[in-house]
Amino acid sequence: MPNPPPKVVCVGIAVMDHVFSVAEMPSRPSKSFATGFAEVGGGPAANAAVTVARLGGRATLWARVGDDAVGRQIRDELAGHGVTVDRVRAIAGARSGLSAVLLDGAGERMIVNYADPDLDTDPSWLPLAELSDSGAVLADMRWPAAAAHVLAAARARGLPGVLDADRVPDGTDCSAFRVASHIVFSQPGLAQAAGDGDLEHGLRVMAAETGTWVAVTAGGEGVLWLEDHVLRHQPAYAVTPVDTLGAGDVFHGAFALALAEGREPGQACDFAAAAAAVKCGRHGTRAGYPTRVDVETLIGEAVS
Amino acid sequence: MPNPPPKVVCVGIAVMDHVFSVAEMPSRPSKSFATGFAEVGGGPAANAAVTVARLGGRATLWARVGDDAVGRQIRDELAGHGVTVDRVRAIAGARSGLSAVLLDGAGERMIVNYADPDLDTDPSWLPLAELSDSGAVLADMRWPAAAAHVLAAARARGLPGVLDADRVPDGTDCSAFRVASHIVFSQPGLAQAAGDGDLEHGLRVMAAETGTWVAVTAGGEGVLWLEDHVLRHQPAYAVTPVDTLGAGDVFHGAFALALAEGREPGQACDFAAAAAAVKCGRHGTRAGYPTRVDVETLIGEAVS
Repeated sequence: MPNPPPKVVCVGIAVMDHVFSVAEMPSRPSKSFATGFAEVGGGPAANAAVTVARLGGRATLWARVGDDAVGRQIRDELAGHGVTVDRVRAIAGARSGLSAVLLDGAGERMIVNYADPDLDTDPSWLPLAELSDSGAVLADMRWPAAAAHVLAAARARGLPGVLDADRVPDGTDCSAFRVASHIVFSQPGLAQAAGDGDLEHGLRVMAAETGTWVAVTAGGEGVLWLEDHVLRHQPAYAVTPVDTLGAGDVFHGAFALALAEGREPGQACDFAAAAAAVKCGRHGTRAGYPTRVDVETLIGEAVS
Repeated sequence: MPNPPPKVVCVGIAVMDHVFSVAEMPSRPSKSFATGFAEVGGGPAANAAVTVARLGGRATLWARVGDDAVGRQIRDELAGHGVTVDRVRAIAGARSGLSAVLLDGAGERMIVNYADPDLDTDPSWLPLAELSDSGAVLADMRWPAAAAHVLAAARARGLPGVLDADRVPDGTDCSAFRVASHIVFSQPGLAQAAGDGDLEHGLRVMAAETGTWVAVTAGGEGVLWLEDHVLRHQPAYAVTPVDTLGAGDVFHGAFALALAEGREPGQACDFAAAAAAVKCGRHGTRAGYPTRVDVETLIGEAVS
């Protein structure tokens, strides 16, 4: 790795996840008792920033929280993972984002997220000049105005700008799609953007529409992308999944860091797939995110 | 109402409910976005205590919380509703009880509750001598050791001791059933305690088993109880339900207060049914709990 390590600016949301462990996932209105509870930091961009830091990169998060106890907790926890949080702004009078996550014994999860509409969406305060020493940008679609604003600035500087394109609420401004240099869809995100059809069809639709590099993460099926109009496929690394919460975010963080290190997108997909696989094979949340040694060990084992 | 107003000691749990409004109740593992969020105090005994205070009685809550920010919030909110909270003990190192509540547009709800096993269950510190100026006790089954301890003390003093008998986790100590003077079951609670069969059958099973006065609240069907082995029925007051969250707790608090005021159990069921109906007809949580004027107005309208 270069010295100093490359910096990745992550833009989007940072929330608190309240994770209730349940014996069985409720499927209808009911009252049930959780067997366990954990309060963990979440949010796609924040999780990606922690991934970058765990993998030895320099991670900076640009995000908003409420000026409440939860917001302070979110920042403190991120700082504890080595993420630079001095651009995580506390918005007066707003509530920090919160998700309730139900996690069953099989690792399935049900997530309900609340984002305060009073979390001012104006991204104009973001310190774009700080991109000058950055190697890449990663943006999620949960703060769409910031994603478009920062990815456009990254493009103007010739920096890789990765968009984490998960499913969004109806009516979301998707102009970030037109300024990202690399779009990594989730399967629900691709289905929402490209309509019915298989993954290859979806990628071709979105490549035509955006004119940029597009990929889709497909869980146990690995990752698919288009390279010069040819469909490429990186199979998932073989692990026994015990906790998939945040695996996509780990992929995005690792992918952006790999681009910042100068890897080609296909190599970056390999690196990111290995990082996501390490994450899925472990219980625990951010403390279980992979280190670089973990990732290189898994890749080495697969090759040998 | 007597002067000073009667005091009801409420024993059980006080928690924080995180209420996520959702357009549609999720029925399987998924990610969804809430349209609204509210942080409201909850817990059966705590809700009953607020009901007593709103109805003009003196309400004291005996409960445990964690020594955390949520615990302070729980106590402060209860005090704001006029509940005496100096016996709400903060347990060092424990987490306050928390529920995630999903509430859909039709008023249906999905609740997942977490209770910290480190919330010390020993009830021996509870100030039983303070029952001397009390008119009744109301206990929920979420702190079963305390329910048995305090209801036994109430019985020894000849005080009405009402048990809110909702469904409990398997293996819960149900010795409180044998010392309560009045047991008010929910339908799931009765089914769990008495097994299969209709409500009358369940009441007869539980009356035989406990030797005490038993009732079951049945939502829109009203409340059923046994009086000298005869099944009695109080129909529900006609309201258009908009929010049933906590309606059972309102019933229990109003019922215990009515007993403390010297009413017969049948009269108390009428009063409590009216209180629960007022609650169901209003949006909002504790601030929407009925006052005595609300209840008397509804009863008067039904009579005239």
